[in-house]
Amino acid sequence: MDRYEVRLSGTGGQGLVVAGVILAEAAGIYEGKYVVQTVSYGPAARGGTSRADVVVSDGEIDYPKAIGLDLLLAMSQQAWDESADMMKPNGVLVVDSELVTQVTYERAVRIPFTKIAREKFGREQMANIVALGALSHIIPAMQAGAGLVSPESLQAALADRFPQAREVNQKALQEGLEAARQTQIVFEEPSSDGNQI
Amino acid sequence: MDRYEVRLSGTGGQGLVVAGVILAEAAGIYEGKYVVQTVSYGPAARGGTSRADVVVSDGEIDYPKAIGLDLLLAMSQQAWDESADMMKPNGVLVVDSELVTQVTYERAVRIPFTKIAREKFGREQMANIVALGALSHIIPAMQAGAGLVSPESLQAALADRFPQAREVNQKALQEGLEAARQTQIVFEEPSSDGNQI
Repeated sequence: MDRYEVRLSGTGGQGLVVAGVILAEAAGIYEGKYVVQTVSYGPAARGGTSRADVVVSDGEIDYPKAIGLDLLLAMSQQAWDESADMMKPNGVLVVDSELVTQVTYERAVRIPFTKIAREKFGREQMANIVALGALSHIIPAMQAGAGLVSPESLQAALADRFPQAREVNQKALQEGLEAARQTQIVFEEPSSDGNQI
Repeated sequence: MDRYEVRLSGTGGQGLVVAGVILAEAAGIYEGKYVVQTVSYGPAARGGTSRADVVVSDGEIDYPKAIGLDLLLAMSQQAWDESADMMKPNGVLVVDSELVTQVTYERAVRIPFTKIAREKFGREQMANIVALGALSHIIPAMQAGAGLVSPESLQAALADRFPQAREVNQKALQEGLEAARQTQIVFEEPSSDGNQI
């Protein structure tokens, strides 16, 4: 694995900065990868897009900014619109299907994270944990994401940060994991012409 | 202000990743600066040093990694030892005086953050908030840090993240702020010879 880039993007209050920390700790502390997690704010931060980038590699990471996204989690339409041109050719888009409806991207997974959080837990704020559960299935299902994170490492990192919410968080992860499994996505890599000169 | 770099460093469990998020949100969301907050993990992350870097600027930040530290908060001896060679000439070191005892650096502020947290709140885990309170005094007292953060913006960012702990967090910030005030530090910039050719 050379370099795998994840962006978690949405609006403030959706808990994506926290989700980025959890994902980074799962890959860095529990999977033993090199990880850089970055959050940027600009003068328009209040009320605008909130996002966290997580870059994972088997080796040291020289350039910590996102260059091409292997996986984008978009929790708002604006989040997708702003980062659409940063997808790698074989990248995967994961969207909250209630909140992001204008998407023509082919390699997209649509799951109603916020609806699941609301209906199963009575708290829309848990959508970030449900989404992490989905990522724990989707990321390792990609060739470039193998060994980067697992349901177990995510759960361990989450329990470390929020020991008092361990049980409900585990359930939320499981909901997301199941929802992702049901999409039965097959992420074949785009065909390549090999090393033709 | 060109570029101001803060590193919060210590051991896992001291809450420095969270402190980095709060500091970044205070400067980015409440003070309207450009901010990049970065956390890195390596294969030795478990049990090793935990740190968060926050780079603040009036303009867009091209290079998000720390280059020269304007302010280092060191909450363990190892944290100081590892980052000592990254201080800018006019940088300021802030240490937990109980935990970091081997320091010859001149521009150092020594405050027993962990002891204060333990004695005033019965919880050593609040040392990170006490330390943020101290930074809210020290950073704006530096010429390079003017307008970057204030007790008010830090308090607002903290209340946003932890609304249910608003009162105790405010008290912890205040304890750190008072402790920093009592050190009566004067951070004159190192003398310069000006533009002599």
